[in-house]
Amino acid sequence: MTTTADVLPTTSTEQLDERVRAARTGYEQAREVAPRRRAEWLEAIASALEEHAEELVPLAREESHLATGRLQGELKRTVFQLRLFADEIVGGEHFAATIDHEDPSWGMGPRPDIRRVNVPLGVVGVFGASNFPFAFSVIGGDSASALAAGCAVVHKIHEGHQGLGARTGQIVTEALEAAGAPAGLFSTVTGRTAGQALVDHPLVRAIGFTGSPAGGRALFDRACRRPVPIPFYGELGSVNPVFVTERAWAARRDEILAGYANAATMGMGQFCTKPGVIVVPAFDVDEVTDVLRRELGTKPLTALLTPGLREGFDTALAAVRALPAVDDLIVGDDAEAPRPTVLITTSEDVRDDATVLEREIFGPATVIIQYRSEDELEELASLLGGQLTATIQAEPDERLTGLVSALHAKSGRVLWNSWPTGVTVSYAQHHGGPYPATTAPATTSVGTASIGRFMRPVAYQSFPEAQLPSALREANPWAIARRVDGHRTRKSNTPEGEAR
Amino acid sequence: MTTTADVLPTTSTEQLDERVRAARTGYEQAREVAPRRRAEWLEAIASALEEHAEELVPLAREESHLATGRLQGELKRTVFQLRLFADEIVGGEHFAATIDHEDPSWGMGPRPDIRRVNVPLGVVGVFGASNFPFAFSVIGGDSASALAAGCAVVHKIHEGHQGLGARTGQIVTEALEAAGAPAGLFSTVTGRTAGQALVDHPLVRAIGFTGSPAGGRALFDRACRRPVPIPFYGELGSVNPVFVTERAWAARRDEILAGYANAATMGMGQFCTKPGVIVVPAFDVDEVTDVLRRELGTKPLTALLTPGLREGFDTALAAVRALPAVDDLIVGDDAEAPRPTVLITTSEDVRDDATVLEREIFGPATVIIQYRSEDELEELASLLGGQLTATIQAEPDERLTGLVSALHAKSGRVLWNSWPTGVTVSYAQHHGGPYPATTAPATTSVGTASIGRFMRPVAYQSFPEAQLPSALREANPWAIARRVDGHRTRKSNTPEGEAR
Repeated sequence: MTTTADVLPTTSTEQLDERVRAARTGYEQAREVAPRRRAEWLEAIASALEEHAEELVPLAREESHLATGRLQGELKRTVFQLRLFADEIVGGEHFAATIDHEDPSWGMGPRPDIRRVNVPLGVVGVFGASNFPFAFSVIGGDSASALAAGCAVVHKIHEGHQGLGARTGQIVTEALEAAGAPAGLFSTVTGRTAGQALVDHPLVRAIGFTGSPAGGRALFDRACRRPVPIPFYGELGSVNPVFVTERAWAARRDEILAGYANAATMGMGQFCTKPGVIVVPAFDVDEVTDVLRRELGTKPLTALLTPGLREGFDTALAAVRALPAVDDLIVGDDAEAPRPTVLITTSEDVRDDATVLEREIFGPATVIIQYRSEDELEELASLLGGQLTATIQAEPDERLTGLVSALHAKSGRVLWNSWPTGVTVSYAQHHGGPYPATTAPATTSVGTASIGRFMRPVAYQSFPEAQLPSALREANPWAIARRVDGHRTRKSNTPEGEAR
Repeated sequence: MTTTADVLPTTSTEQLDERVRAARTGYEQAREVAPRRRAEWLEAIASALEEHAEELVPLAREESHLATGRLQGELKRTVFQLRLFADEIVGGEHFAATIDHEDPSWGMGPRPDIRRVNVPLGVVGVFGASNFPFAFSVIGGDSASALAAGCAVVHKIHEGHQGLGARTGQIVTEALEAAGAPAGLFSTVTGRTAGQALVDHPLVRAIGFTGSPAGGRALFDRACRRPVPIPFYGELGSVNPVFVTERAWAARRDEILAGYANAATMGMGQFCTKPGVIVVPAFDVDEVTDVLRRELGTKPLTALLTPGLREGFDTALAAVRALPAVDDLIVGDDAEAPRPTVLITTSEDVRDDATVLEREIFGPATVIIQYRSEDELEELASLLGGQLTATIQAEPDERLTGLVSALHAKSGRVLWNSWPTGVTVSYAQHHGGPYPATTAPATTSVGTASIGRFMRPVAYQSFPEAQLPSALREANPWAIARRVDGHRTRKSNTPEGEAR
């Protein structure tokens, strides 16, 4: 496989330092602009991406091997995300602006006037993922949310799509410049050394990362070891198990297998939310094999994203196949565009050795676990590590309180009769989960709630109105959502807007 | 100095493990109770503390040497905090419940029904502080917010008040039991080994800590190194600088000095928010010395909290006094209850060596920095490390945009013409700040916002109503504040409650 990786020069440590310093300057110049102004910058980036779609999608296709339709959809998602974030920051929820007026009769003793607002952290380092060259890369969720928060971004381009990364970076930088944003607010770097220097740089205040458990943990450790540690928002690995009840299996086995085969091989199984394991009642092997062969046979095959990922896939698959209690159900091949593999084991074996619940196989391979009794499901759930998602396939009237509770304890998103691969960008979305799914289980990397990751609160005590930041002034000049003396207020801050 | 520390047995690692396991069981039993029920538990603890005030305050006085009036006020604050948190969780802000209904015309493609709610993390380990034996100790802010979040707490009693700690722990445990809370939800342990084992225990999901920079960083590193890292909410050190403008100094020098002397020696200077440094225009040394001697001479003197803190005070004071550019203005003594010390240096010297801005002297000693020109203030602010607070003393009509901006970048709370030692418990309070003030700058350890530290979000996708957690059901049975399709709603979830 050839990529443009070889022709792009790697960023030196000196160049990295220059870009981080320029980003800091840009951040300082932009720190206090009104949300409407910042929203225009995000919208300018969104429009520029749309304008360059016909150039960017083929570039992405060439470097990632992903299908054109999928990449067009991903670019649409990326553009939508920027516009949703623009709208969100105008509403001002991300400021979490809170005002407590002076209160001489406050229960613990007289209360001074205290007002709190979230402020942007500063320069954020973002590491792009290989598997979503738009949505989780240069100007994907981490970069968009950091810019929406008011931070500057230095993005480390993924080795897997350096040509696309560099071109996207140019388009973003030019769009920001044309929209009047300060220089330096967004830039890109390349190469492993620059990535490490980015995590270490004293002016960098947070890291957004999507990638492998090993690489993510190494950078997390690095961020913790700094003289001044910084938050590391890392999305690492997840097997995204699916649990099928006896009744659901009896009622619609083939439909479930078809849905599973589709979700598990979408993008050649290279989704962080790929359902890697499905737990089902004991079945007739010939029948299930026939259904899966038929479903899997219709899926388009492409090469994996990068040679490194292919090597990782082969290694992980070999390791799981080598487990004594794991058998082949459908064996793929080692072609450049490999056909999917399906392995099989039993709940009893998993209770002895939970490796299949722990080891993500990033690529087109999955494991089916057969159980004898539905009573085993909660115990199997308890053996899971932290997950991005966990899915239940059940009949609509089933009550599975114990299983739902067990799965919510292990994962960031729990699904009912749907598939985890689609991650909608919205207000309620949570794309996160306990370690090792992420290194920051309280945060999401998708949806409007992701903006707050790149902010911290500052309280102002007894400040004169004229010296307060706009978000906290009595007249609410930015017309943002606030909480005043414990009550939610309308944007206009009128008393009838109380929401409690 | 004698304390009951010697007579209390330290907790063995086995006992620690038992308590953590019991806490996990208690947490699981309590996890899904309605907020009103949990609020009753907090209120039961508050009432029990009030009932035992006459027993607890003398115990605290004996072990901490703090004055009775101060301890009574601190207990009142602790009780108020529990009741405010009880009220807050009934309102349900901490759930951040967010509902996005299914939307086939959502901009990036059809949106499924997604609902997000914050859930409690599990067992939380809390390390009590020596300087607030009620408000930041056994059932202080960290424990109260963790219980309010729905977590169980294992509290490591501070060596400085083990008798009070053990007795408070009993009272809390009995109050919870009498109120019908599950066993194990709250317990205490003692000793350094148990403290370390608490940070390491696989069932512990977060740590709350208030203490020294060295001890806090060691435990932070420990929490990061775990196979499954956990958040470490540590409040470490802060010099809490005060910046005085030329006009304020000219208009009310003696009043400022009196306020400063009071704040800096309150509780013998053993406040995390003690203003340790004041930056003022060049002055007449004799006059200022006279004012300070007079003000400081009226303050009651007591022994420091513990022999260890006394040793730390002596060491830090000696180190700062040994700096070549630091001179004595008022020299205290080395009595068991030491008189306050005031040191003096210049802005020019601080620009050469910023140690006085970095080294907290925990106890009754402060540093005055004289500047030549107000233009230097922003530069001095830029030399600061992360702070809990930074204070400006200015005339009401002064415009200090640059200085306010420089200070907000360095601290969690910025004050105008007030003193940082009072930290009111309210909705808008933020008691936190950039490292080394804390290890988690996006969180507060005081105020209702502290509850969210001990929760993480879970999203439910396409769930049937009957299987959703109560906080997310369409009918809003707990009548909590929510955000629905992007709009804030009243508790009753009626459309007229929209707050955007």
